Amino acid sequence: MPAKVKVTFQPEGRVVKVSSGTTIKEAARQAGIIIDTPCGGLGLCGKCKVQVAGHVQEPDKIEQKYLSPEELEEGVRLACLAKAANHIVVRIPDEVRLHSQKILTKSIAGKSQLEPGVKKYYLQLSPPDLKNQVSDIESVLSGLMPASFSYDLDFLQSLPDLLRQENFKITCVIDNNKLVILEPGDTSKRLFGLSLDIGTTTVAGSLIDLSTGKEIAVASLMNEQVIWGDDVISRINFVINDPKNLAKLHSKIIEVVNSIIQELCQKGEIKSNEIYQAVVVGNPTMSHLLLNVSPVNIASLPFITVFDSRISIKAKDIGVNINPQANLLVLPGISGFVGADTIGVILSSGVYKKKQLSLAVDIGTNGEVVLGSADRIMACSTAAGPAFEGARIEHGMRASLGAIESIVIENTKVKFGVIGGGEPVGICGTGVIDVLSQLLKNDIMDNTGRMNQDRFLLYKNENRVIDITQKDIREVQLAKGAIRAGIEILKEQMKVDYDDIKEVLLAGAFGNYIRKDSAVGIGLIPEQLKNKIKFVGNAAFAGAKMALISTKMMRRAEKIAERVEYIELSGRADFQEEFAKAMMFDKEL
Amino acid sequence: MPAKVKVTFQPEGRVVKVSSGTTIKEAARQAGIIIDTPCGGLGLCGKCKVQVAGHVQEPDKIEQKYLSPEELEEGVRLACLAKAANHIVVRIPDEVRLHSQKILTKSIAGKSQLEPGVKKYYLQLSPPDLKNQVSDIESVLSGLMPASFSYDLDFLQSLPDLLRQENFKITCVIDNNKLVILEPGDTSKRLFGLSLDIGTTTVAGSLIDLSTGKEIAVASLMNEQVIWGDDVISRINFVINDPKNLAKLHSKIIEVVNSIIQELCQKGEIKSNEIYQAVVVGNPTMSHLLLNVSPVNIASLPFITVFDSRISIKAKDIGVNINPQANLLVLPGISGFVGADTIGVILSSGVYKKKQLSLAVDIGTNGEVVLGSADRIMACSTAAGPAFEGARIEHGMRASLGAIESIVIENTKVKFGVIGGGEPVGICGTGVIDVLSQLLKNDIMDNTGRMNQDRFLLYKNENRVIDITQKDIREVQLAKGAIRAGIEILKEQMKVDYDDIKEVLLAGAFGNYIRKDSAVGIGLIPEQLKNKIKFVGNAAFAGAKMALISTKMMRRAEKIAERVEYIELSGRADFQEEFAKAMMFDKEL
Repeated sequence: MPAKVKVTFQPEGRVVKVSSGTTIKEAARQAGIIIDTPCGGLGLCGKCKVQVAGHVQEPDKIEQKYLSPEELEEGVRLACLAKAANHIVVRIPDEVRLHSQKILTKSIAGKSQLEPGVKKYYLQLSPPDLKNQVSDIESVLSGLMPASFSYDLDFLQSLPDLLRQENFKITCVIDNNKLVILEPGDTSKRLFGLSLDIGTTTVAGSLIDLSTGKEIAVASLMNEQVIWGDDVISRINFVINDPKNLAKLHSKIIEVVNSIIQELCQKGEIKSNEIYQAVVVGNPTMSHLLLNVSPVNIASLPFITVFDSRISIKAKDIGVNINPQANLLVLPGISGFVGADTIGVILSSGVYKKKQLSLAVDIGTNGEVVLGSADRIMACSTAAGPAFEGARIEHGMRASLGAIESIVIENTKVKFGVIGGGEPVGICGTGVIDVLSQLLKNDIMDNTGRMNQDRFLLYKNENRVIDITQKDIREVQLAKGAIRAGIEILKEQMKVDYDDIKEVLLAGAFGNYIRKDSAVGIGLIPEQLKNKIKFVGNAAFAGAKMALISTKMMRRAEKIAERVEYIELSGRADFQEEFAKAMMFDKEL
Repeated sequence: MPAKVKVTFQPEGRVVKVSSGTTIKEAARQAGIIIDTPCGGLGLCGKCKVQVAGHVQEPDKIEQKYLSPEELEEGVRLACLAKAANHIVVRIPDEVRLHSQKILTKSIAGKSQLEPGVKKYYLQLSPPDLKNQVSDIESVLSGLMPASFSYDLDFLQSLPDLLRQENFKITCVIDNNKLVILEPGDTSKRLFGLSLDIGTTTVAGSLIDLSTGKEIAVASLMNEQVIWGDDVISRINFVINDPKNLAKLHSKIIEVVNSIIQELCQKGEIKSNEIYQAVVVGNPTMSHLLLNVSPVNIASLPFITVFDSRISIKAKDIGVNINPQANLLVLPGISGFVGADTIGVILSSGVYKKKQLSLAVDIGTNGEVVLGSADRIMACSTAAGPAFEGARIEHGMRASLGAIESIVIENTKVKFGVIGGGEPVGICGTGVIDVLSQLLKNDIMDNTGRMNQDRFLLYKNENRVIDITQKDIREVQLAKGAIRAGIEILKEQMKVDYDDIKEVLLAGAFGNYIRKDSAVGIGLIPEQLKNKIKFVGNAAFAGAKMALISTKMMRRAEKIAERVEYIELSGRADFQEEFAKAMMFDKEL
């Protein structure tokens, strides 16, 4: 019987005793921490990276394939493969943990300089006297030289009492050039910000300490607007059917956002009125619905938004429960289907400042494609549909517990990984891509997408059958065809070749879990770009965080929005042609 | 029996037939128009100027004394003295009409260039198409080059429907650099503004057509806050007693303002949402109460306001019923007792740009005194108290129907004028000043203010006695002493003599009705300045109107507020000394 060893998990400090030789993934499970292993622990994805100190068994060849020498030196290991030899301490990054729904909450924001638009100043003012007979607002402004701040009526209304409550010792909250809030005494250390990614399917929130720049909590929930439609077009149609439905959609998203705020405040142990600014990204339809602005003209030719510009409003005006005086900012967008989320991707990925061309693909219900560099940026949006999110697939499901998310077919034998382990209950987007890639590789499906059977069985027990149908394949063909055609059109529009593209950035919660081999296998990404693929996680969300902690980044987002050339695909003959070709599974388009 | 002649009154077009030789005043009375004759038709004031065409009897010596040759040439006559010889047409200016309460509604605004802060633009935009895929807000902004306007969320919310209602033909309302309202079709000719003078006792409103600069209606009402106190100090004490009373005072003034707006809209035949901007003057306490901002710290040392700066808010935020998106601006003030009203006086009287020194005195419950020129301006406020408004005087009353407002004593015989004619019911401020001046002149009162009797009888019938008491005289002494001491302190502070002062501007509803002889007679104004006295009417209100029709004037008001040196009289030994002297009735201080 192997010796018992102690495994300590950080940052929880949770300790379990396991047999020597147990994988870190299994030890974590025993400690109540579920590590997210996209490939089901098959050693196929290299995603379950954790940091280990202490005695771990030497890495095998598969681990060595996924980890660079620098990573191994720093103690980075794959949780599904690395085995404890003796006592170890393991730090599990947040992005490797499995949340109830698999959403990336950690961003690549990284090292933006900390200079949030909202700041606090603690002022110890001299109370006025007959020799210094200044108005209350002048007292405050004089403590804030240069004294050129604007303020609202409610600020003035609260001013005299607040000033005298602590004898003219007060903390001012400044949002850009506006005095927004006054608090008695010194509260300057309590300054929090919220960033939000409002997705068609999922809403993610991040609570950031704006005095340190640290992310102190993340949370996400399903966008409950899905009860009125899976994608933006069906939500817009819901409003077209009855203009009163706009209020329903708006209220629902506000409810979800407020639930996220509540959870963030609990996790971060703060009060919601200590959040002084919110920065939001989302696609144009989501931005419109959040602000209770009608999106109806986005859905039909010529696809017109009400606004693309950066918006700044009082959060309370739309019912968002943060400090009642706090502003909520929506990053600028570009067009009806390329919104603040895409600007967030361009901002956080740095595409806009790179010397060489990058291709960024944000895979969601809409697939936004960006091709650009410091010289020029083009973007388009493709109606990929929700197939990659598991919808319109017979046994499809979102990437949550029980979803088949990785598949290998060898000699007609199917091996798969399930999120959270255990029995599968359906198949999610990455699983679907894997299946198609493997069906093609094993000649079960031809290059037109026709299978040599009606259904391909993935799993079966007494209660359940999970298979892939010919119709499922057609749905995926439409989705991948649309995105791939978008890539081709931008390439042609920019008059460049694949060789000119130095990197391919796959963004989005989904994009981060996809396997390169399969993405290329089904032709979503061209073969020639396979080795240039990088996963940038929820880059849109990362952009929101960067703009929250840095006004410089916010201004940069606005500059980017001005620069991006939007390529409308609708009604283009060449797009239809590329789309038809891209639906196929030929090696060359 | 004299022949009947026809008298036509303009602008009403009302016609009466009267005997030849009837005064215009009497003819007007028969036509149902009451002409305001401050001296009671005694030919003592020269205020009832009307314009006459047709056959009028030649002016007598008294009329010739009050009218310049130019005026006589233009047909200007005194209504109380000029007699119809045959058919005539009479135009009665608004300021000569007696309103239920005597308030000046006509201003001296005159020739400010028409450039209001709020403007309308009619745009015929091209609807977007696939080649011109711009957001709705971009469409609007592109029609308004340079396109650098801000806008609020509700603007965006209303945008898509409004744009499409008239196929992208819309009228934009711009308030300075902000897009505030959008209206379908062409409404550019309907652009109205409101100016308000919020007095402690009276509130006056003026409706101005901002596309022509014409005043189209005036209205005024009592400030019903008087039920909680006659003067600003008692209103502030009402709030000090219970902070909840702030809301009562605030609601009351909003009620009054909305009644005035309703009346103006009826008179002007417009809808209240066609009023797109309001500009307000008032003393600091009134400004605070209007905005629901606590004035409690104004009442006690060191007399601190919450704001002196120019304020701009949405009118609807305080419940003022004009266009819900319209802004309400409050002119800047200077200190706890020198407010927007004084800035209005300085602005409309032009004191700030004159080469030579002017002394401006705004006589109300507070008496504000301004001494200045283009070089330097000083201002102070004196707590005159409400004696000049008829309060704290035993038989005192406001300047309304039945008030004795002018008095001459000759050989102990009393002659007086009553507002509206008929039996007197009390005595108002101008009457009180006349009495004191006449008592002094007739040696009934000595230079310390002591009478040779306890009471001096003015009027008596079976029901009523109206007399002046020793205590009344003491109240007036306090009032006139305070204002006169303010004048002396400013003169000393500025290091000038009476000779350096080129004009004395008496402002305020009351100031306009006072008689020079009496003002000098009781020492309110120094003897040496008597011939320099000019009446400038409700100059504060005129300032509000100027700022409404001209942003240049609004900016000028702000510059003035920065320039004015406020002289705090409280706690100054020299003020106490001057005050003690000024209470006396000596010829020389």
